[in-house]
Amino acid sequence: MSDEGAVLDAIAARRELIDDALVERLPIQEPERLYHASRHLIDAGGKRLRPAVTLLVAEALTGIEPPNADYRTVPTLDSIDAGSVGAAAGVGTGDDVDGTTIDVMAAATSIETIQSFTLIHDDIMDADDLRRGVPAVHRAYDPETAILAGDTLYAKAFEFMLDAGAPPARTVEALSELARTCTLICEGQSLDVAFESRDDVTTDEYIHMVEQKTAVLYAAAARAPAVLLGADDATADALCQYGLDVGRAFQIRDDVLDLTVPSEELGKQRGSDLVEGKRTAVTLHAREQGVDVEGLIDVDDPEAVDEAAIDAAVARLDDAGSIEYARTLSRDLVDRGKERLDVLPDSTARDHLRDLAEYLIERGY
Amino acid sequence: MSDEGAVLDAIAARRELIDDALVERLPIQEPERLYHASRHLIDAGGKRLRPAVTLLVAEALTGIEPPNADYRTVPTLDSIDAGSVGAAAGVGTGDDVDGTTIDVMAAATSIETIQSFTLIHDDIMDADDLRRGVPAVHRAYDPETAILAGDTLYAKAFEFMLDAGAPPARTVEALSELARTCTLICEGQSLDVAFESRDDVTTDEYIHMVEQKTAVLYAAAARAPAVLLGADDATADALCQYGLDVGRAFQIRDDVLDLTVPSEELGKQRGSDLVEGKRTAVTLHAREQGVDVEGLIDVDDPEAVDEAAIDAAVARLDDAGSIEYARTLSRDLVDRGKERLDVLPDSTARDHLRDLAEYLIERGY
Repeated sequence: MSDEGAVLDAIAARRELIDDALVERLPIQEPERLYHASRHLIDAGGKRLRPAVTLLVAEALTGIEPPNADYRTVPTLDSIDAGSVGAAAGVGTGDDVDGTTIDVMAAATSIETIQSFTLIHDDIMDADDLRRGVPAVHRAYDPETAILAGDTLYAKAFEFMLDAGAPPARTVEALSELARTCTLICEGQSLDVAFESRDDVTTDEYIHMVEQKTAVLYAAAARAPAVLLGADDATADALCQYGLDVGRAFQIRDDVLDLTVPSEELGKQRGSDLVEGKRTAVTLHAREQGVDVEGLIDVDDPEAVDEAAIDAAVARLDDAGSIEYARTLSRDLVDRGKERLDVLPDSTARDHLRDLAEYLIERGY
Repeated sequence: MSDEGAVLDAIAARRELIDDALVERLPIQEPERLYHASRHLIDAGGKRLRPAVTLLVAEALTGIEPPNADYRTVPTLDSIDAGSVGAAAGVGTGDDVDGTTIDVMAAATSIETIQSFTLIHDDIMDADDLRRGVPAVHRAYDPETAILAGDTLYAKAFEFMLDAGAPPARTVEALSELARTCTLICEGQSLDVAFESRDDVTTDEYIHMVEQKTAVLYAAAARAPAVLLGADDATADALCQYGLDVGRAFQIRDDVLDLTVPSEELGKQRGSDLVEGKRTAVTLHAREQGVDVEGLIDVDDPEAVDEAAIDAAVARLDDAGSIEYARTLSRDLVDRGKERLDVLPDSTARDHLRDLAEYLIERGY
């Protein structure tokens, strides 16, 4: 059984440290307007789930534990194997890198900075006005500043991953993954946009898109600390798969929650995906079952969409087995993701990572 | 004396190879619309001056010469010092990197890919409709696709620099420089935008902005091959300074050309900077001399701006010594940039790099 309370407490404790690190790494400097805009969404909050994954993986791999552990000086696995942090100095490192400790917090901020950059640009592309309860950057400032703020965070994310201070070969691998991740996120966003004008998108195509747009950053969050700390390939790959599994589960469960959670809890109109004609795991499955998904809601008159209309549409989707399909799919992904964690030593951090996977599909919003 | 014909021929010969490499590295793949948009400006042409600098520096450092040389397998300086390419295998490299040759062409495409990304996003921000004789990406496609195409090229540029295959420590240094360069370009663009609404911008501030927005990419183009091939720090730094000097000279001379070259040669209205109220090295100097720059052209009635009005404005700027100031400034920068190249061995490639510096301020357009 998962312990939702414990994992939420664990994430909250780490979120404070992550927030501090983000503010420290992204000071308001000249040109101030650019950096204010770059910090806008970061300052607005967020659960910091992805960087929390990075910290938890580092804890599970090395045995460090907060509050006594310093995420900025996490001992590499080589230095631990060598019996002391000092003993492994120089192993596989460049001249100017000590190589026995890694600034895992820098890597965690890198992941969150990528997330923030993609949100800023996505909000412009999707013409979304609100994010995290505040105006989107292109509304709070202007689209030009928002483009540039995203571009700035993009570069900063690479700088932060470099700041982790891993031995060069590992830094190269982490940066290579970060660059590939960014490419995949762009491709995923492009597919998402393209799907809106296509009537023949399959659930398989949708899941592939979700993997690219959303899951790869969870994968990078979980894999990066393993690479930087010198874990073996099998461990790094299993952690990458954990990220891909729980990232997809997270998005697919989001598709269900949009239909099943009351508007007041959701923080937006229940069924907004239906009203906006978005392709989701639920609607694509329903169409494959012969349901006239476009006819479920009269989208030509969004004002007339009331709770009863949403209820009727949800009932049709439920009858077609589509809600159960998406629930089962995300459940299976989470179960598989949790199994991936068997590569990690038994630890509180590993428990948290398992509970985090559960939380991603058990959460009410 | 510079040999403008020879350097133009040299750049043209390298441009063909760079174009081939760009097309090869950025194939049209799924999602095709995204990659078509990403390739749009690259396919539209361009002089490829920055990647040409990268190739020429590699030639000057290693003695390779086209058409016999393969830019994808340029011997590192260590391997050359060791007397044979094979002899230095493994020096300072990771397990999976041979380390005796560098794909300098990959680094060159990285630099051009950054340039292309910045053009795409700048055109959105500046609402420019034309670029390289074709509609800007946000016009040929749409702003959403243009944002995403730029973001895709951004990631690809990092992938390409990694593909250069340098020993890890050198790759880390090159990527660190690339990330810092991107941050500076964003800061420079932000300053440029901010200057438009400020009346008290000084020439020093302007030159600093030009360094960040434009010159740093020339600096990265010149320094990256030195870092990747294993040149010493003094050489790498001198090449970086060469890029900063000629990059600033290029932009400042652009400010002069906008006033002095007939519209038909410029490909746009002569004096467009004045009409648009842009801060330039010329106008900022003039204002510092007490000239009422805003009053030079009646910008409230752009239709009424004719050649005679531009001639009168240019005459005022000339009287204030502002055109001569900018000419002298760019000349001094080019002279200093050429001296930086003394760190390179005597070679045809070094001559080309000197002539390229001259060309940047001698060109008629």
